[in-house]
Amino acid sequence: MQKSEEQKYRVRKLEISDKGKGFIELLQQLSVCDSVSDKEFEERFGELSDLGDEHVICVIEEEGSGKIIATGSVFIEKKFLRNCGKVGHIEDVVVDSSARGKHLGKRIINFLTEHARSMGCYKVILDCSVDNKPFYEKCGFHHKSLQMAIPINPIDENAESIPFSPRPYLKSKEGCTDGGKESAVV
Amino acid sequence: MQKSEEQKYRVRKLEISDKGKGFIELLQQLSVCDSVSDKEFEERFGELSDLGDEHVICVIEEEGSGKIIATGSVFIEKKFLRNCGKVGHIEDVVVDSSARGKHLGKRIINFLTEHARSMGCYKVILDCSVDNKPFYEKCGFHHKSLQMAIPINPIDENAESIPFSPRPYLKSKEGCTDGGKESAVV
Repeated sequence: MQKSEEQKYRVRKLEISDKGKGFIELLQQLSVCDSVSDKEFEERFGELSDLGDEHVICVIEEEGSGKIIATGSVFIEKKFLRNCGKVGHIEDVVVDSSARGKHLGKRIINFLTEHARSMGCYKVILDCSVDNKPFYEKCGFHHKSLQMAIPINPIDENAESIPFSPRPYLKSKEGCTDGGKESAVV
Repeated sequence: MQKSEEQKYRVRKLEISDKGKGFIELLQQLSVCDSVSDKEFEERFGELSDLGDEHVICVIEEEGSGKIIATGSVFIEKKFLRNCGKVGHIEDVVVDSSARGKHLGKRIINFLTEHARSMGCYKVILDCSVDNKPFYEKCGFHHKSLQMAIPINPIDENAESIPFSPRPYLKSKEGCTDGGKESAVV
């Protein structure tokens, strides 16, 4: 009897043995991740395990090959805002180049969003490119604001170093507060 | 002798006594935060304190009045990506409406960014509106991507409930991975 897609592409939490199943190689399809020793992996795995349900990484293991073909993570931010509310932050979602078109990305997003809901979050957020906005809209997300970044201790040639020299202060009175408002509420 | 702006507007970490100094009222200038009891505040303060340097909330207390007039938070995300790298997430930045134009927002951002650097983060990110992009650019940030959100258990009438009914799967093969790439790398 043929297995359902659900059985075939079950989403589960990351296990320490997944390093040997291509988890790091999968992350390399996202960004720099070229030198993680077994010891470093185990230490970081332990640090994240200590956070329990506050930081969850999920994966999909390919039947037969036992290779990790999709992953994503969500961590729970505890706020005072929104009456001591919680927000789920989704990060590091990737589907192996050989396994695209099977909707595994959506399975990962749904798993992570459901986890955030079970943790009592009032919203889940993530960042994406303009090109991928339609995908996340299909997952139920909508565009809220701009994501801004500042690189520190760059590990790739595209990143600049962080400017800590004095800079001219902001002239606009609105900037700070509204900026804060957006970085807080959205 | 007149105090310097630095002495006058010193940024420090949140203290449990700050609830009585208008910290919650300040957050109300950002978003809903209208029913936080002393017990709830102390519990959340304790939860965040347990995270130590992994989640820091800073404030500026006004001399004389002893009122909290600015705040912001940063939490450190531990990744496997970027060779077990760390990312600082800035949230909930606000300057009291009566204290704008004193560059307190920039002091808060600099404090939080410096903390992330001291924690070994390779980048710091935050979300803001298009209107506030110039302010964050002056703080050294640059626009990286779009922030997407999905509301859960809405606490205001503008929020929709999260769709958990089955949705049509994504047609595009690129969506998941590039989406993941952006939500991971940026």
